[in-house]
Amino acid sequence: MLRTHTCGELRLSDINKEVTLSGWVQKTRDLGAMTFIDLRDRYGITQLALNLASGNEINDTVKTLGREFVIQVKGTVIERESKNKNNLTGDIEIKVTALKVLNISQTPPFTIEDNTDGGDELRMKYRYLDLRRNEVRKNLELRHRMAIETRNYLDSLQFLEVETPVLIKSTPEGARDFVVPSRMNEGQFYALPQSPQTFKQLLMVAGFDRYYQIVKCFRDEDLRADRQPEFTQIDCEMSFVDQQDILDTFEGLVRHLFKAVKQIDMPNVPHMTYADAMKYYGNDKPDTRFEMKFVELNEVVKGKNFKIFDDAELVVTICAKGAAEYTRKQLDELTEWVKRPQIGATGLVYARHNADGTIKSSVDKFYNEEELKTWSAACGSQPGDLILILAGPDEKTRKGMSELRLEMGARLGLRDKNKFSALWIIDFPLLEWNDGDPNLLASLAGRWHAKHHPFTSPKPEDFELLKTDPGAVRANAYDLVINGVEVGGGSIRIHDRALQSQMFDLLGFTKEEAQKQFGFLMNAFEFGAPPHGGLAFGFDRLCSLFGGSDSIRDFIAFPKNNSGRDVMIDSPSEISDEQLKELHILSTVTN
Amino acid sequence: MLRTHTCGELRLSDINKEVTLSGWVQKTRDLGAMTFIDLRDRYGITQLALNLASGNEINDTVKTLGREFVIQVKGTVIERESKNKNNLTGDIEIKVTALKVLNISQTPPFTIEDNTDGGDELRMKYRYLDLRRNEVRKNLELRHRMAIETRNYLDSLQFLEVETPVLIKSTPEGARDFVVPSRMNEGQFYALPQSPQTFKQLLMVAGFDRYYQIVKCFRDEDLRADRQPEFTQIDCEMSFVDQQDILDTFEGLVRHLFKAVKQIDMPNVPHMTYADAMKYYGNDKPDTRFEMKFVELNEVVKGKNFKIFDDAELVVTICAKGAAEYTRKQLDELTEWVKRPQIGATGLVYARHNADGTIKSSVDKFYNEEELKTWSAACGSQPGDLILILAGPDEKTRKGMSELRLEMGARLGLRDKNKFSALWIIDFPLLEWNDGDPNLLASLAGRWHAKHHPFTSPKPEDFELLKTDPGAVRANAYDLVINGVEVGGGSIRIHDRALQSQMFDLLGFTKEEAQKQFGFLMNAFEFGAPPHGGLAFGFDRLCSLFGGSDSIRDFIAFPKNNSGRDVMIDSPSEISDEQLKELHILSTVTN
Repeated sequence: MLRTHTCGELRLSDINKEVTLSGWVQKTRDLGAMTFIDLRDRYGITQLALNLASGNEINDTVKTLGREFVIQVKGTVIERESKNKNNLTGDIEIKVTALKVLNISQTPPFTIEDNTDGGDELRMKYRYLDLRRNEVRKNLELRHRMAIETRNYLDSLQFLEVETPVLIKSTPEGARDFVVPSRMNEGQFYALPQSPQTFKQLLMVAGFDRYYQIVKCFRDEDLRADRQPEFTQIDCEMSFVDQQDILDTFEGLVRHLFKAVKQIDMPNVPHMTYADAMKYYGNDKPDTRFEMKFVELNEVVKGKNFKIFDDAELVVTICAKGAAEYTRKQLDELTEWVKRPQIGATGLVYARHNADGTIKSSVDKFYNEEELKTWSAACGSQPGDLILILAGPDEKTRKGMSELRLEMGARLGLRDKNKFSALWIIDFPLLEWNDGDPNLLASLAGRWHAKHHPFTSPKPEDFELLKTDPGAVRANAYDLVINGVEVGGGSIRIHDRALQSQMFDLLGFTKEEAQKQFGFLMNAFEFGAPPHGGLAFGFDRLCSLFGGSDSIRDFIAFPKNNSGRDVMIDSPSEISDEQLKELHILSTVTN
Repeated sequence: MLRTHTCGELRLSDINKEVTLSGWVQKTRDLGAMTFIDLRDRYGITQLALNLASGNEINDTVKTLGREFVIQVKGTVIERESKNKNNLTGDIEIKVTALKVLNISQTPPFTIEDNTDGGDELRMKYRYLDLRRNEVRKNLELRHRMAIETRNYLDSLQFLEVETPVLIKSTPEGARDFVVPSRMNEGQFYALPQSPQTFKQLLMVAGFDRYYQIVKCFRDEDLRADRQPEFTQIDCEMSFVDQQDILDTFEGLVRHLFKAVKQIDMPNVPHMTYADAMKYYGNDKPDTRFEMKFVELNEVVKGKNFKIFDDAELVVTICAKGAAEYTRKQLDELTEWVKRPQIGATGLVYARHNADGTIKSSVDKFYNEEELKTWSAACGSQPGDLILILAGPDEKTRKGMSELRLEMGARLGLRDKNKFSALWIIDFPLLEWNDGDPNLLASLAGRWHAKHHPFTSPKPEDFELLKTDPGAVRANAYDLVINGVEVGGGSIRIHDRALQSQMFDLLGFTKEEAQKQFGFLMNAFEFGAPPHGGLAFGFDRLCSLFGGSDSIRDFIAFPKNNSGRDVMIDSPSEISDEQLKELHILSTVTN
């Protein structure tokens, strides 16, 4: 080894040891008689002390050192005169007797510090330098720890990690597939998996009983912020279970991770139906770190000649605790905020529940104080609170109010990154109507579309509705939501060939299409498929949540940008005509 | 849960418990008054006892049960009258009080038994049924255990598992890439990684110090037996190490795996140079479970008017212990064996060292007993041994003798699957001449080709030869060989931009090509790249070795056949014109 110790491990108990360290020059301070170098590696920083006054032969070398040079030093561990309590190695330093440059470095294009001066684009281009920064490296250390603890937990419950194939078959249900032309099978293509869904179900048919995999998945979507074309799932499946067993097992996983990784004792995770989530939060992934539930005011506010409320399909309020002192200017700004196209409200009605118990609204012309008290009673406001009301079409208004609720939560400091609130959303609708999703092939528009995926089991008590009112059928499907982020989701699967076949009919597959794309699964169901279900966690997102970040990119070593490019390696790129020819394809792009 | 216990866990201590089990019907035995069912799940088999004479209402259901039906039963654990000592649950049975069919099954196309009646093709098509067989499932359980133990070991040494991207950039050095057309970047393609080589080196530049990943890799090769287009590596890299540190660290991993998974204490792993491996075994991955080393006889046999030996570049022998009693028929058959085109020898010379001390050869016309004794002295034969000699051009004869040695090892029972012999092969040549490898693009023929890969460091003492005699340059490269199987290999990498650039020149890259394909890596070397090296294990192969099998397919849940097809899901397959159009490509195959 080119070192005896790392830069993070020497302590007072090592005094007088002869050691060899290797690492990067973080900083050099020339104090005349003495020169100090902060030597950095993944494990920490150790101070090197060089007495250059003594005619030491390493003088010349030291003078050439720049930031990020890689050096190896030998020396003696000595106690520091002025200790640095912020650094675990801060009690000692190395009295250097030999120094060797292992590699030189150009001046990096940005500083390798917690607060770097590098912009996003530059840091992505030089990601290998960005990764030297403590903060970025700690994110990936967290990710490693999360993966190890996930495996430990699932292994202890007899889950088997099984690798499923990456070169599979294109099934243009769901998002678009990435495809891979086959050289040996002319004119044919593999597809990269959007998830190992069918394979994990086949493993259940195979009697594997409990399966998991931490696995890369791929979706060729138009990338929004915080989406990546390749992403990682903790993918799981169990046999002989009902929904509650799955919720218990994976609530256990999340609780284990919080305890092992963050030393947090998670309380039990409450369940909420999809219907309630939409009713109280206007959102199927509500942030429950704070209350501020929706209260519908239709019964209370109508019939007072205020046309906006009278004409509205929905009038809905939230009560912002302690915000009565919002100034007129703040409220005007908030009104502009809800009128932005992203929210699309026509306006914002508010009422201050003042500290003296009076209530003053922005629509005092239409409602007297007595009537405002009924608003207060409905939403439970107390003196000091601010009542905020939106009105309009039901769905759009709920969405807008959900955004406003999150915004008020943020403004009132209720969305603390160090506080975690989880819940299960259950009883999702089985289907939704596809008006033409830009992430799907155009040919799939104007059909029912599986909200979760085509293998999700409808609730037995809703079977009858499949024929009469498909949109009303509830599924045995569930999502785990933490702090308003959907971190995982899954379902009890169909394990009966006839029901699966009926689902494909409903989703607009012809018999031939269903057989061609999923025949192997339906055939498998004829050979003793056990009842089964499972779920998948978005591992990138789970890591970012644990790391207190909104961005999954911070938790991926080499992410792609919003055009799906890796700007560091400059990929994707053109390939040679010889390659194209061997793959039996032509590019339609003229260069 | 649809069970209180698995089919593998009930014991005498559970007598009188009321239990619920779920599983597959392995076998039904109708003994008149009593019917017995073997109920199977992943964990074992439990016997169910049904007293159908008592007018039990489940009579009718039992009569419908076929093999592989999925059932749930309730009952009481009772002691068995005739115990089955071969089964961990063999002391008990379940007196069944309720039985429910969870799913029916068609008769499977082959028996779900250790020795199945299903042929290879049928079992691959119904892989989900094949996976129900104990033997296949145990292989994948072994694989799971190996992965867990690998991670435990590396985690304990502060290795970080970091996921590297799957959608990367095509670099047609090495084998052919699988490529992925980009929809968002018209006319451009991603490539799937043949290994994460450049990314793990960038992680070293990033100061990650110790990296590993159990990761899928992809090579578009013409598939030989026991190759898969997608395969899994344990991929590792370390900084601030020399070659010996890497050998020690990963010898430790292998020793840990043998101990944890197979309860075997591995002795220290010896080192052998590539030159010695070729000299003594004619092979850079010798099976050292048995000796039978090559002895060159040129000095001993020439000049006795036996033209075949006199004209041969190489005369080489092995001594097969205890095989002197081989009959003339066996020796004739062995002679035919070496003359097959795969071996290509022109003939086989042998000499029996008889039990009485006499030596009789197949070339007694040319060599008297005194001369034969010099053969015996050279190869160390004892009475009872058989001396086998091949002669011809050096390289071809060594290859043939290597095959003959392995064959004799097998015939003499020296290749016991339960015995393990490991060694490191070191000092590989840096380069080899590419005459036109069918797995490479044709345009790469007639060039030096990196034997390991273009990032491997030449030995410093051989730097000078790079210009004068590239073929003689040795690399800091090493393979781990166990039982004649190359299970892993790696090298100390180049970390200096100038040397890397020189390597690309030597490999026939123009400056532009090198910059376009690997510019990001060479740039990274300018910002303080530490000395580093690593290796990768073939995880599929390592698992098959531990499992005592020659076939990696047995250790992959869903393998592909030799045409790269998954016959279960029928992939690859055609994709729609709409998909092709969105990806900006045309297929040149007319359907």
